[in-house]
Amino acid sequence: MKLALLGVGMIGGSLAAAWRRAGAATTVTGFDISPSALDTALARGLVDRTAADAAAAVEDADVVLLATPVGAMRQVLAAMAPRLPPQAIVTDVGSTKVGVIADADATLGAAIARFVPAHPIAGRELPGVEHADADLFAGKRIIVTPTPRTDAAAVAAVERLFAAAGGRVERMDASEHDRIFAAVSHLPHLLSFALVAAIAEGADGRRKLGYGGAGFRDFTRIAAASPVMWRDICLANRDALGQELRQYRAALERLQLAVDASDAEALHQTFELASTLRRQWTGTVDAG
Amino acid sequence: MKLALLGVGMIGGSLAAAWRRAGAATTVTGFDISPSALDTALARGLVDRTAADAAAAVEDADVVLLATPVGAMRQVLAAMAPRLPPQAIVTDVGSTKVGVIADADATLGAAIARFVPAHPIAGRELPGVEHADADLFAGKRIIVTPTPRTDAAAVAAVERLFAAAGGRVERMDASEHDRIFAAVSHLPHLLSFALVAAIAEGADGRRKLGYGGAGFRDFTRIAAASPVMWRDICLANRDALGQELRQYRAALERLQLAVDASDAEALHQTFELASTLRRQWTGTVDAG
Repeated sequence: MKLALLGVGMIGGSLAAAWRRAGAATTVTGFDISPSALDTALARGLVDRTAADAAAAVEDADVVLLATPVGAMRQVLAAMAPRLPPQAIVTDVGSTKVGVIADADATLGAAIARFVPAHPIAGRELPGVEHADADLFAGKRIIVTPTPRTDAAAVAAVERLFAAAGGRVERMDASEHDRIFAAVSHLPHLLSFALVAAIAEGADGRRKLGYGGAGFRDFTRIAAASPVMWRDICLANRDALGQELRQYRAALERLQLAVDASDAEALHQTFELASTLRRQWTGTVDAG
Repeated sequence: MKLALLGVGMIGGSLAAAWRRAGAATTVTGFDISPSALDTALARGLVDRTAADAAAAVEDADVVLLATPVGAMRQVLAAMAPRLPPQAIVTDVGSTKVGVIADADATLGAAIARFVPAHPIAGRELPGVEHADADLFAGKRIIVTPTPRTDAAAVAAVERLFAAAGGRVERMDASEHDRIFAAVSHLPHLLSFALVAAIAEGADGRRKLGYGGAGFRDFTRIAAASPVMWRDICLANRDALGQELRQYRAALERLQLAVDASDAEALHQTFELASTLRRQWTGTVDAG
């Protein structure tokens, strides 16, 4: 299978490496707006050749993998659509799905039937193709969100590919996907970014940050993530994220009242519920 | 040195173990409201004997270590004060300092001069003396917050003890301590508890939690902490925590407006600031 990789970063590079190792990808053509990302990918053997633009990258592809930040996908889709071979299958790894489907709808024409939206639940806080790892998806959930118009054979082909990368594939409705990940991924990232920024901008912020311990390290690890990628995700999932943020702010307002009023019982109820659930928690990562 | 350990949990047990290994503690007498904690501590050799109450525990002590949740400290101080030997030094490991100093002021009488408030910046998310570890403090900051009335020889003795446990001792004003840790410890804990509880209480909460990945795991690790301990900390540090929470809520309100208005620039500014700082960050844990 000839793979066109549009967006040569940590996730895209990891999938290319996994597919090559599994024998699923024979040739990988990469395109990225960053020349240094392409150089690194060539040097690491993650891509065999590079293309000057997205259209040139896809012209002999069997499978096109969109692995750019979600905010760039519409532009990349529009650029490559005219040169997309008639049988090529297109998939993506965006963290939001409703917006990417709308981008594909607006750009792919009849090829929309062969666009299979997907989201691998795997990552690391360090972006960049230099952190690509063929083992990244081993045992990880990979969610595929076909629409009623998606060709069944294309869905099956993409599911086989993600399984070959080591993932556990499951299907979900795109709207449900976006609601779930607004709660358990996009909101925590926004909250973690917000805490580091709020402390830094407050009185004596740099000094305070120096006293962060293990709890602070864990809570803010995701604040080291790519600002561009997470800006795009927040914009692409605006409605679901906005709703989750609103509910969370209402919960914080209740906790503010409890703190200000020294309401031990209200604090204890919330903390007890959370602590019990968190100790029982077995999320996606436990398969990794 | 004969040590009286009041509150036989993870932190107290770890200090007793570290001091015994360093040859600083020759005899350890433990008191706890939980008989099973005392049994475990005896079985692990962390204490040599147990006492029926706090007063009996301290009657021949050279050093008394208060290691209960901060909400229990006033009661324990009041109970042991009548039997405290005239030369005994008292210290504590509470995560808030202004409130504990007020508790000691209200209960210790003249012995207040020999009370040296302290806070080791070390911990693990799993509470209980079964997780005690003599190495817990190696290279960790231990903050001592004496008042103008604290006896200098008592401060020096406590600082030597914490150094013997492997800690890096520094002094700080108690109010400054409480402001710093409201920002980098107490607020993150409250936010993490709040997120798990808010998701659980929302629509389809249990299903959503099952999709949490590595970022969610990190962000919510501190939500597994003891609800009683953190309720007490929030109450004891009400003013500083309430102020930090208010500022954070104002920051979240601005981010809500940015999300709702698809204000890419506002989101990017906050995320970029946080990401840059978090990547540069070297907090207390990096010494561990």
